[in-house]
Amino acid sequence: MTEGVPAEDVLAVHQLYGRQSHAIDSGRAHEWAATFTPDGEFVSPSYPAPSAGTAELVAFAERFHAGCLASGETLRHVISTVDVHPGDAPDELSAHAYLQIIGGSPPRLHRLTVVADELRRTADGWRIRRRTVHRDA
Amino acid sequence: MTEGVPAEDVLAVHQLYGRQSHAIDSGRAHEWAATFTPDGEFVSPSYPAPSAGTAELVAFAERFHAGCLASGETLRHVISTVDVHPGDAPDELSAHAYLQIIGGSPPRLHRLTVVADELRRTADGWRIRRRTVHRDA
Amino acid sequence: MTEGVPAEDVLAVHQLYGRQSHAIDSGRAHEWAATFTPDGEFVSPSYPAPSAGTAELVAFAERFHAGCLASGETLRHVISTVDVHPGDAPDELSAHAYLQIIGGSPPRLHRLTVVADELRRTADGWRIRRRTVHRDA
Repeated sequence: MTEGVPAEDVLAVHQLYGRQSHAIDSGRAHEWAATFTPDGEFVSPSYPAPSAGTAELVAFAERFHAGCLASGETLRHVISTVDVHPGDAPDELSAHAYLQIIGGSPPRLHRLTVVADELRRTADGWRIRRRTVHRDA
Repeated sequence: MTEGVPAEDVLAVHQLYGRQSHAIDSGRAHEWAATFTPDGEFVSPSYPAPSAGTAELVAFAERFHAGCLASGETLRHVISTVDVHPGDAPDELSAHAYLQIIGGSPPRLHRLTVVADELRRTADGWRIRRRTVHRDA
Repeated sequence: MTEGVPAEDVLAVHQLYGRQSHAIDSGRAHEWAATFTPDGEFVSPSYPAPSAGTAELVAFAERFHAGCLASGETLRHVISTVDVHPGDAPDELSAHAYLQIIGGSPPRLHRLTVVADELRRTADGWRIRRRTVHRDA
């Protein structure tokens, strides 16, 4: 146990986050959406409305990638400073991390956000039930 | 074992570092101080004097947060590149990591430091006995 | 198992990456080269030719550090966003990560690269058989 969470579960969250960033940055929209539960929600002040459910999440990731292609600027989701806590129920976890959006040439830090996730254990492993993104400015 | 350190212990250090950054950046001074042992020491060239012991560590974190509030600039401690080694004794570990201080709008990298920690196993888990911060410039 | 890879192995890759960055940034060329297999290859568009085998890898890391000393600028390899996948064989892994090269005063992000590694289990632990570095711009 590492601060109340089994090591295996902590590491599953690290893996989920790594996979998620590479998926969206590479334009694999379905793979990105699959890091959420089927009823997963993504709430971010950077975008006008939340995305909820697989279809909307896929569409969100597709729009993100299309935007990169249109601007000619590859953006990278750099995830770090992961902190995994016990959730409200045995098959739930809560996690915080920092997410830097970096891109351009020369590369530039576009924004630094704090992600706050509620995760749920599924038959396929841990998935994000709800992500809330905070921006400082 | 991962390079001489049990996987469980490596991950406990990752968790400790994640928790520590979110604690100080959110103004939770007592939680930040509690990532150190009660006699823990924090030595950094960015500040005029070391902090030693829980009371001084709490005061340090409170000053840090007050400075952010005064300047209106939230700073984030982005931790990465963690390397955990065996310590000098069975219940000790040594670890290095990179710590970037990022904040402002647009966000800016204020400094990149190298943290060198001596950690000790306690009844509450791994805690920092002594942190020495190095700056390149 | 975390997404198909034993937790122990995922964490060994995290440890390998942390150690590797601190090794090259501190001028420990032999330690950096030892994060590769003896026949390991390093292929990067940032450098004119690949390095293959321990002797060439040591020489590469020595040149890197000599360049830092000559310019007076310490560079830091900030690794993050690690994603470890099963490899093509039982004793192989594949991994992706983001690698930021940061240095100078004030510190500046020189480049952000994507590393794609093939790793092999050896008697000494996981080692990089082939690293391919991608740059967006």
